[in-house]
Amino acid sequence: MTNPSLLILAGDGIGPEVMAEVRKVIDWYGAKRDLTFDVSEDLVGGCAYDAHGTPLTDETMAKAQAADAVLLGAVGGPAYDNLDFSLKPERGLLRLRKEMDLYANLRPAQCFDALADFSSLKADVVGGLDIMIVRELTSGVYFGEPRGIHKEGNERVGINTQRYTESEIARVARSAFELARKRNNKVCSMEKANVMESGVLWRDVVTEIHAAEYPDVELSHMYADAGAMQLTRWPKQFDVIVTDNLFGDLLSDLAAMLTGSLGMLPSASLGAPTANGRPKALYEPVHGSAPDITGQGKANPIACILSFAMALRYSFDKGDEATRLEQAVEAVLADGLRTADLIGEEGRAPVSTSEMGAAIIAKL
Amino acid sequence: MTNPSLLILAGDGIGPEVMAEVRKVIDWYGAKRDLTFDVSEDLVGGCAYDAHGTPLTDETMAKAQAADAVLLGAVGGPAYDNLDFSLKPERGLLRLRKEMDLYANLRPAQCFDALADFSSLKADVVGGLDIMIVRELTSGVYFGEPRGIHKEGNERVGINTQRYTESEIARVARSAFELARKRNNKVCSMEKANVMESGVLWRDVVTEIHAAEYPDVELSHMYADAGAMQLTRWPKQFDVIVTDNLFGDLLSDLAAMLTGSLGMLPSASLGAPTANGRPKALYEPVHGSAPDITGQGKANPIACILSFAMALRYSFDKGDEATRLEQAVEAVLADGLRTADLIGEEGRAPVSTSEMGAAIIAKL
Ligand SMILES: CC(C)[C@H](C(=O)O)[C@@H](O)C(=O)O
Ligand SMILES: CC(C)[C@H](C(=O)O)[C@@H](O)C(=O)O
Repeated sequence: MTNPSLLILAGDGIGPEVMAEVRKVIDWYGAKRDLTFDVSEDLVGGCAYDAHGTPLTDETMAKAQAADAVLLGAVGGPAYDNLDFSLKPERGLLRLRKEMDLYANLRPAQCFDALADFSSLKADVVGGLDIMIVRELTSGVYFGEPRGIHKEGNERVGINTQRYTESEIARVARSAFELARKRNNKVCSMEKANVMESGVLWRDVVTEIHAAEYPDVELSHMYADAGAMQLTRWPKQFDVIVTDNLFGDLLSDLAAMLTGSLGMLPSASLGAPTANGRPKALYEPVHGSAPDITGQGKANPIACILSFAMALRYSFDKGDEATRLEQAVEAVLADGLRTADLIGEEGRAPVSTSEMGAAIIAKL
Repeated sequence: MTNPSLLILAGDGIGPEVMAEVRKVIDWYGAKRDLTFDVSEDLVGGCAYDAHGTPLTDETMAKAQAADAVLLGAVGGPAYDNLDFSLKPERGLLRLRKEMDLYANLRPAQCFDALADFSSLKADVVGGLDIMIVRELTSGVYFGEPRGIHKEGNERVGINTQRYTESEIARVARSAFELARKRNNKVCSMEKANVMESGVLWRDVVTEIHAAEYPDVELSHMYADAGAMQLTRWPKQFDVIVTDNLFGDLLSDLAAMLTGSLGMLPSASLGAPTANGRPKALYEPVHGSAPDITGQGKANPIACILSFAMALRYSFDKGDEATRLEQAVEAVLADGLRTADLIGEEGRAPVSTSEMGAAIIAKL
């Protein structure tokens, strides 16, 4: 039997630094748990542009398609701010999402007990928070045509198209309902059906799928602006939230920040099941490339390590090993270890990226 | 000299209840400050649909165009949830915004000292918060064509178009820079220029207007998802935020909720200066029609009263009288008066909508 394959795209900024720690975790699983991956590495984002003049080469795209899972660090940075739109680091990531057809982006927003104090929200509002945002990731205004900037008379006009088909909505709704069944059985769907027809269709299709296939799950609908408010006011009212690409971008970042644990949060982007029964999948931390702290050993590797835990669970059927890794993370936090991003007023001395990685492995 | 004219559109839900208190405030200004308005009332939203089969009649539209200012309560409610998209209560409000060309929506997010405890955020994060969101209100995905739901093959497709012209961006950017000069001289512009070309144009135009006309104002740019995060993490970093219609919808609701003072927050929607030098203008509370508490005397009239204060300031050049009214609101809060929405754990007895209105007038 061949080993499962893992393509690592560390990307830009702190991506390579946090990924170095994940490599050590992967090595540990090979050495100690007889769980060996065929790991290969490649470029995405600004570093791919620097090397090849494009944020993602066709060769890398093909490797991603062939891998059992892709693990991505982060893309982008100020060095690339003035690039043409089509060459931006982000386009590499978007191409991966689109061509791998990773339509369900799972973003847990979880408040780690040891870090509740670090949230800007009150302890009782975020303590114990554990919600899951399911964001549609391959359609909507991110990919709709027509798009671009053109001239009309003597002025420029910028255009993007929000576009959702029934089947695009149905499949991500199913992902959300399936997840809810394994959690607290509640889904809240968010759109702006009061002002956008694409939102009307979204609401209708989610309602239909629910009635036909998941009547046992509790479903509610909320306008996305009210959703942003309710997430801020009392996030624990939610279990699973399902929403479109653009609203999901904002709302999942908001939810991540609520927890105070931004540097801690992983994500999984999943496609339809393939021949081997497992979905195409890409795993990445919710945080970005953090150019301000790049190269200083300050980055928190936990979000990326927990993204690998999600890979163990969703791509490799190793839920137990995923839990082991998650518990190791909780254990180092309970011991008081903190990277710089997790230091508040209390003036604790931070540990470095690699110290955090080593401490987690020591707990495994 | 004729009196300035004010069209009141109380709308649905708690709209009429809070507006009744504003009427008393208006009467007080007539009786005590020799400031008399020609007030007329009309229907908008669900109540207009009930009476006329449309959420806004042409007659009402014409009255709004002719008025020196429009004061609106709220629109919508569950009774109208199943109406056709084009008949929804919201369409009445959107028609007013569009046909009056009210392109700059000013939404102050201010934390009232007496209410800081009521926020879900920690006191030091929100205490003293005072930011202003300037939301573009007449374009973007709310109004772009093509739009609608149609069939493609055997499935439905929902489409909306995000569309911004250079001049639409330029004029709202100017509103933001002008406001910043009267405040802390800082503007942060938010878009998703990394994934949307309309965002690229937005960023470019804001940058150009800044360089050509407002180089003295401090300008920064942020992706809207990062903006949602930063608003949650440390909102005091902002002074004026300028953003498009859809992002503004979410971000201003988020900012309002941060303050803990949602029932307190007014808004002004302003157009270009007319022949008399004043902008066309519509004033409304940020909160909605609150069907759950309608008719119970529980609604907080303060947001609507402060919306009238904004009218005094922006439409009638009565900044001093606006300040008088704002101070009266602060005074009743300092006295400990609270409507039901402002009661937290402490178990204080709430005052009713009309008691709150009367108390504010008593402080004038
Ligand atoms: C980097 C960027 C293209 C991306 C997005 O907008 O989807 C990011 O914000 C995210 O949420 O993964
Ligand atoms: C009622 C609705 C049409 C409106 C909007 O989406 O603009 C509301 O949410 C607002 O923010 O004023």
